[in-house]
Amino acid sequence: MSVFGLTDAEVIAHVRAVSGDQHDARGVRRLFARAAWSGIAEPGDRMAGVVVGSVGADVALEALLAGWSAERWQAELSHSGVGTVTAAEIGSAVDRWAPRLNSAQVLRSLSHAARFAVRLLTPEDPGWPVPVDELSVHAPLALWVRGRLDDFQVVERSVALVGARAATGYGEHVTMESTVGLVERGFAIVSGAAYGIDGAAHRAALASHGTTIAVLAGGVDRFYPSGHDALLTRIVDSGAVISELPCGQPPTRWRFLQRNRIIAALSRATVVLEAGWRSGSLNTAGHASQLGRPLGAVPGPITSAASAGCHRLVRDYGATLVTGAGDMAELAGDTVTERVTERRSAEQTRVLDALAVRSARPVDDIAARSGLAPADVVAVLGVLHLEERVVEHPGGWVRRS
Amino acid sequence: MSVFGLTDAEVIAHVRAVSGDQHDARGVRRLFARAAWSGIAEPGDRMAGVVVGSVGADVALEALLAGWSAERWQAELSHSGVGTVTAAEIGSAVDRWAPRLNSAQVLRSLSHAARFAVRLLTPEDPGWPVPVDELSVHAPLALWVRGRLDDFQVVERSVALVGARAATGYGEHVTMESTVGLVERGFAIVSGAAYGIDGAAHRAALASHGTTIAVLAGGVDRFYPSGHDALLTRIVDSGAVISELPCGQPPTRWRFLQRNRIIAALSRATVVLEAGWRSGSLNTAGHASQLGRPLGAVPGPITSAASAGCHRLVRDYGATLVTGAGDMAELAGDTVTERVTERRSAEQTRVLDALAVRSARPVDDIAARSGLAPADVVAVLGVLHLEERVVEHPGGWVRRS
Repeated sequence: MSVFGLTDAEVIAHVRAVSGDQHDARGVRRLFARAAWSGIAEPGDRMAGVVVGSVGADVALEALLAGWSAERWQAELSHSGVGTVTAAEIGSAVDRWAPRLNSAQVLRSLSHAARFAVRLLTPEDPGWPVPVDELSVHAPLALWVRGRLDDFQVVERSVALVGARAATGYGEHVTMESTVGLVERGFAIVSGAAYGIDGAAHRAALASHGTTIAVLAGGVDRFYPSGHDALLTRIVDSGAVISELPCGQPPTRWRFLQRNRIIAALSRATVVLEAGWRSGSLNTAGHASQLGRPLGAVPGPITSAASAGCHRLVRDYGATLVTGAGDMAELAGDTVTERVTERRSAEQTRVLDALAVRSARPVDDIAARSGLAPADVVAVLGVLHLEERVVEHPGGWVRRS
Repeated sequence: MSVFGLTDAEVIAHVRAVSGDQHDARGVRRLFARAAWSGIAEPGDRMAGVVVGSVGADVALEALLAGWSAERWQAELSHSGVGTVTAAEIGSAVDRWAPRLNSAQVLRSLSHAARFAVRLLTPEDPGWPVPVDELSVHAPLALWVRGRLDDFQVVERSVALVGARAATGYGEHVTMESTVGLVERGFAIVSGAAYGIDGAAHRAALASHGTTIAVLAGGVDRFYPSGHDALLTRIVDSGAVISELPCGQPPTRWRFLQRNRIIAALSRATVVLEAGWRSGSLNTAGHASQLGRPLGAVPGPITSAASAGCHRLVRDYGATLVTGAGDMAELAGDTVTERVTERRSAEQTRVLDALAVRSARPVDDIAARSGLAPADVVAVLGVLHLEERVVEHPGGWVRRS
C-alpha cells in the first residue's frame, strides 16, 4: 500500500470515508486507485480506459508511478487482448497523466467528498450502473455520488430527458407532463441539471415523487449551475447527483460534452424535448445513437427556433418522433435491459466456467481462463459473491458446488 | 357513330363544345366515349380501367351497349395482357355499369360542361397530366377541367398541400408561408379546396401569383364547399378546378376518398400540414405512399390535436418531417419527373419501332407490334405527332424518316 508513499492508515481512512468499511486491503487499494484515476484522466480518455480495463486501476496507477516505459506498457497490454496500442499513444497518454500524479490532490478530493457525504462508486460495486459499461474504453472510471440513491440498477428503467437551456413555456410544459407520465410508469429520470428543460424534468420528477439523477460536468461538491443550488439539494435528498469527476474539479466545455455521454449511457432511452439548431442536447442525442440506444425527439411548432433541433433529429438523424410519456416509455421499452442481462449472464457463465470448486484461483488466472478483462472479472465476481455462488479465499476464488 | 343511337351531328357538336375542333371522327368518338365512361364508372373502378385500357373507351362503350357476354369480354381481355379477369368480375362490373348507360345524361353533362366552359381532357391529349397514369387501372378515365390552365404538364413540378378542415391559426399560417415559398421555387400547388388547410394553400398560391389546381369530388359545374365559391372562381381565373366526374355529379363520401388519390397522383410530393388523428388527409397521404411518391408532414405542438395526425404519419407511416418550403421542395425533388420521362421515352421508342416509314399502320396494329395498350399508343402518337416525328395518313400512322 505504498502508493504515492502514503501510509496504509491514510489511504484506508480516506477511502473508507467514501465507501464504507466492507472492503479488504486489496479492495481499498483498488478504490483508492479508481479515485486517483478519476482525477488523472479527463472524462472519456480512451487510453485510461484501456490501461485500467487491462491491468486494473491499482496496477495501472503503480505502473504510472513506477514510470513504465512505452515498450513495457505495450508488452503488458498486448497480453490482455485490447488490440494494438502504439508506443506513441501510450507515450502521449503517460505525458498527459504524469502532471496530475499528485497524492495531495487525491487525498484532498477524498476528504472533500467525505465532508459532502459523497460516495465513490466503482464497477466492482453491485450498485454500479452496468449500462454505462457499454461505453467500453470510454466508460467512466468511477462515479462520485451525492444523494440518497445507492443502487443504480434503477437506471435499467430510466429515460434521459434533455433539452435546451433556452426552453419555451411549451417545452417546459411538455417536459413536466412527460416526466410525470414516465414517473407514473416507474421510470427514473436522468438529466443534466441545466436551466430550461433539464431543470423542468428534475423538478417534475421530484414533485411526482419519482427517482431522478442529475449528472454534473464537475465535482458534485459544487453545484452547477449555482442558480440550481436549491434544486440540486432537493435531488440529493431523494435521488442522486453524480459525476465522474472528483470533488474540487470544475466543469469545462469538454467535460460538459463528456458528461452528456454519461447521461445517454445511463438511460435506456434519451429524449430531446426542445433544442435549437445547434443545441448541446444534440450532443447527448449523438451519444445515445452511438450506443445504439433509442433516441426520441418531441416536435413543436416549426415557427419555434427552440424545436428546430428536435425536428432535425427526426428528419436527419433517425430519432423517433415522440408525443408524450406513452411514446417515451415505449421507446425505452427497447432491449437494453435484455441486452445487459444477456451480456451479464454470458459473463457470469464464463467466470463460473473459469472457477474450480476446490482450488482457489486468483483474478488474473480467472481473467486468462475466461477471456475477460480482470476488471470485468472482479465486477462479475462481486455479483456472484452477492448471490453466494462464489467464495473468496486467501489464494483467490472458488465456485460453490 | 351510332353510339346510343345518337346522330353524328349531335355527338360532334357536343364533343367539340368541350374539346375544340381539331379532332377527326374517330377522335370525337373516343372523346365521347371517355365522357360517357367518366359518368358510367365510379372513380377508381378497377374493371373500368381494365376494359378501357385494353380495348379503348369507344370499343368498350360499344361492347357494353351491344351487351357482350362475360365470356366474350374474357376472350377479348385475354388478348390484351391485363392478366386474369374472372367472369364474375366482368359480370358484376357490367351489372353496375348498365343502369348508367343513359345517352341523355351524357349529352346533358356535355352541354352542361360547355355552358361552364369546362374542357374534357383525356390521356390522348398532350396536356394530360401523365403522372396520374401511375394509378394504372385506377387512373381517371377523363378529367373535366374548368379554368385557365390548359397544359397539366405543370404538375411535374407540383406539391399537394393538404390538411384538416379544422385547422388552427398555426396550421393556416404555416400553410401560407410554405405555399409562398413553394410558388417562389416554381412549384404548382395542388389541393382539394376544402375549408382550413386546403383553402389556405389555394389562397396563398393565388396571392403569390402561383399556379394552383383544385381537385373536386363532384362535377366542376357546382363548387364544393359552397362557402368557397369565390375562392374557386378565382382559381378558375388563373389555374384550374378539375374533377374526374362529369358535370352534374354530386360529391359523395366515396368520391371524396377517390378524389384524394387524384390529388396525390397529380403531385410530385404530398405534404400534410395539419391533421387530426383520423383526418381525411391521412387518406391522401396513404395514396401518396401507395404510389411511392414522397410524403411529408409538418409537425406542430404535441398539445395540439390538429397536429396529431401529422405526428402519426412521421412516427408510424414513414412520412418525412418537413419544416418549411425548402424541405418540401427538396421532398418534391424526387425522381418522379425522371421516372415519368423515362417511361414516356421507353414507350415512344416502342411505338417508333412499331412504325414504318412507308406503309401506314393503324393503331391496333401498332399496339400489337409494340405490346402497348391501344390507348397508350394513341397517347404516345399524340406526343410524337406534336414533335413532328410521326404523320397520320388515312390508313394509319407512319414514322418520319
